[in-house]
Amino acid sequence: MNSPATSDILARVADTLESRRPERGGDPASSYVAKLLARGPDAFLKKIGEEATELVMAAKDGVPERIVSETADLWFHCLVALTHYNLRPEDVLAELARREGLSGLAEKASRPAS
Amino acid sequence: MNSPATSDILARVADTLESRRPERGGDPASSYVAKLLARGPDAFLKKIGEEATELVMAAKDGVPERIVSETADLWFHCLVALTHYNLRPEDVLAELARREGLSGLAEKASRPAS
Amino acid sequence: MNSPATSDILARVADTLESRRPERGGDPASSYVAKLLARGPDAFLKKIGEEATELVMAAKDGVPERIVSETADLWFHCLVALTHYNLRPEDVLAELARREGLSGLAEKASRPAS
Amino acid sequence: MNSPATSDILARVADTLESRRPERGGDPASSYVAKLLARGPDAFLKKIGEEATELVMAAKDGVPERIVSETADLWFHCLVALTHYNLRPEDVLAELARREGLSGLAEKASRPAS
Repeated sequence: MNSPATSDILARVADTLESRRPERGGDPASSYVAKLLARGPDAFLKKIGEEATELVMAAKDGVPERIVSETADLWFHCLVALTHYNLRPEDVLAELARREGLSGLAEKASRPAS
Repeated sequence: MNSPATSDILARVADTLESRRPERGGDPASSYVAKLLARGPDAFLKKIGEEATELVMAAKDGVPERIVSETADLWFHCLVALTHYNLRPEDVLAELARREGLSGLAEKASRPAS
Repeated sequence: MNSPATSDILARVADTLESRRPERGGDPASSYVAKLLARGPDAFLKKIGEEATELVMAAKDGVPERIVSETADLWFHCLVALTHYNLRPEDVLAELARREGLSGLAEKASRPAS
Repeated sequence: MNSPATSDILARVADTLESRRPERGGDPASSYVAKLLARGPDAFLKKIGEEATELVMAAKDGVPERIVSETADLWFHCLVALTHYNLRPEDVLAELARREGLSGLAEKASRPAS
């Protein structure tokens, strides 16, 4: 599960999003992401609220495929927002790692379950 | 940026969350996550709606540290939800990878990093 | 401001929404509300999440016209949801009135400002 | 149902909220609303996102009492936001009435209540 293919996917998606920025040549006419970025924050922030709601509804229905799909939608639009603000998913992961450390969970998590 | 420490952080956080499940010994009295999981879906799904809103507000304010912190909060509570439904962040990452492929980015994405 | 025209508007909108129910003859092809109701809860509940986010963004921008307009959007979609569940805005208003009473605010609120 | 007690409840709640403004003597130590208003927009806007999510969950569960209660929570916090921005529920109702008119319901809406 932790193959390079999945572990770096957030960074790879962020790279792709970066290339969709209008000022980097992204074309709002042909790219959904370029259009979102060209329209400005309200366009993609609204999607974050919408996708969060859709995730909640999928979870209430308890359908695993939809939960995964809606979480992907939500994270994707978070990555679009990060791109706009010149931030990276690695920043978010570093923050999550920092919290694990602060809460003293890192050691425990890395310990064998036995 | 893509050091092992950050690239696998989602999986590591998920492992920690897994250990907080009440049926796995997580103690609702001492652990925030165990309490959320013990109270059931509405408790953590509500947090997803709340944290999404906080991310939107941080983005409107344009403060990078808060955007990162609120995205971390939002993703963290998504991970709690995934845990409850016996799903993994790797499932979400695989879905994101699959979409990259579908959108014609497959070749780029499957190319060796070197 | 408290003319009959405004004070009963929620009930009047609810009456209109009621007439848009597909089983009451509402036509999903020509009516936005009939379409929402025909598609089922996820369609209009998603709008509640979306409109709530848009209200938050309008409020962050501090533009009065947009705050009013987005609040109207949000309440409107709440009224659509109430319609689906055979509930009325009067039920919500009665609940708000009940709380005013419970919190001992009713008397104070009805007292002349002087 | 359209008794004065309920038909003017939004205006009455707004009057009460107005009296809770810290600059009008509302005490953040004893009043929930005064505290929300004193803490500023993010405090009550976050509640709008949270209550919208709770309404969505109550609707998914299909429990009428909770749908009414959560809608009341959501509208209440919208009224708090309106108070902060010096707006009134009557402004929102007027906007809803205006839209009814625009959507071809003008004749019905402008008919005397008699």
